[in-house]
Amino acid sequence: MTATPILTAVRARDLAQDLPTVRPDSDALAAARLIASHRLPGVAVVDADGNPVAVLPASQVLRFVVPTYIQEDPHLARVVDEATADRSAGALAGKRVGDLLPARGQRVELAAVEGDATALHCAALMARLHSPLVVVTDDGRVRGLLTAAHLLEVLLSSAEDGSGQASTK
Amino acid sequence: MTATPILTAVRARDLAQDLPTVRPDSDALAAARLIASHRLPGVAVVDADGNPVAVLPASQVLRFVVPTYIQEDPHLARVVDEATADRSAGALAGKRVGDLLPARGQRVELAAVEGDATALHCAALMARLHSPLVVVTDDGRVRGLLTAAHLLEVLLSSAEDGSGQASTK
Repeated sequence: MTATPILTAVRARDLAQDLPTVRPDSDALAAARLIASHRLPGVAVVDADGNPVAVLPASQVLRFVVPTYIQEDPHLARVVDEATADRSAGALAGKRVGDLLPARGQRVELAAVEGDATALHCAALMARLHSPLVVVTDDGRVRGLLTAAHLLEVLLSSAEDGSGQASTK
Repeated sequence: MTATPILTAVRARDLAQDLPTVRPDSDALAAARLIASHRLPGVAVVDADGNPVAVLPASQVLRFVVPTYIQEDPHLARVVDEATADRSAGALAGKRVGDLLPARGQRVELAAVEGDATALHCAALMARLHSPLVVVTDDGRVRGLLTAAHLLEVLLSSAEDGSGQASTK
């Protein structure tokens, strides 16, 4: 394996994937569908100006299909009757993304980077914030998302072909 | 949207995906490749007996390709020179998964469920532990993994077709 300049040469705008974001007033079911269809670790929540608000993790969405008393003791799921427990995805109907977000102090801060930020900058932010994704902006508009898994993929493929060029999508 | 019995009728063994796990002494690069190739939120770490140890999140793996002083101030990534910073994926070479895990008190607890646990039980565990995945075991052996995103997908597809039957893979 050879060292390559990918971390400092490749820019966030070339790494960003065209994945949708949601707003606090977006439909909760739509956010759940985004996470499911793209197999995302969570979805990025931005405000009306495109500023990052938080990550809505997939596990946090699941919380809303589970009755509270079962969240507290998952073993009760074994004995609960279907009529009581089976709110399933219906529990998300009518809810907003803002209703699903963790309390402000418990949120995963969503990082945003400018399009010309290096891959190194993106990696450092995700590591520091324990965030599975960052929002990439260009001229103040959301250009796309970069997940930690995708960034790892780019780093590894670069290291393995030894070219120092990233396959960026 | 109709309520369906999926949460109480579908079992973890039918939801588990055949995704590899790693051990604390597994090669760190191999764990990074797993995360990247399956676009996982992280990888499940189990001990030699198959008992769950922790989740190794993708963002935690990224930490090891970033020099410490840049982790502390990601903006330094803008000014660092290539020779200093570009350890890239090479920084993972020779490391073990155990070297990458967060300190014990900061770990995401990895949940394990028996194969006959209900989907509801799985959802409750992921929500309570803020975990993006659970390990599914059968007769003491790891049968597979279930991610939060995949469980959401099953719940949503069931709700949308109204059949109450999950498409489990």
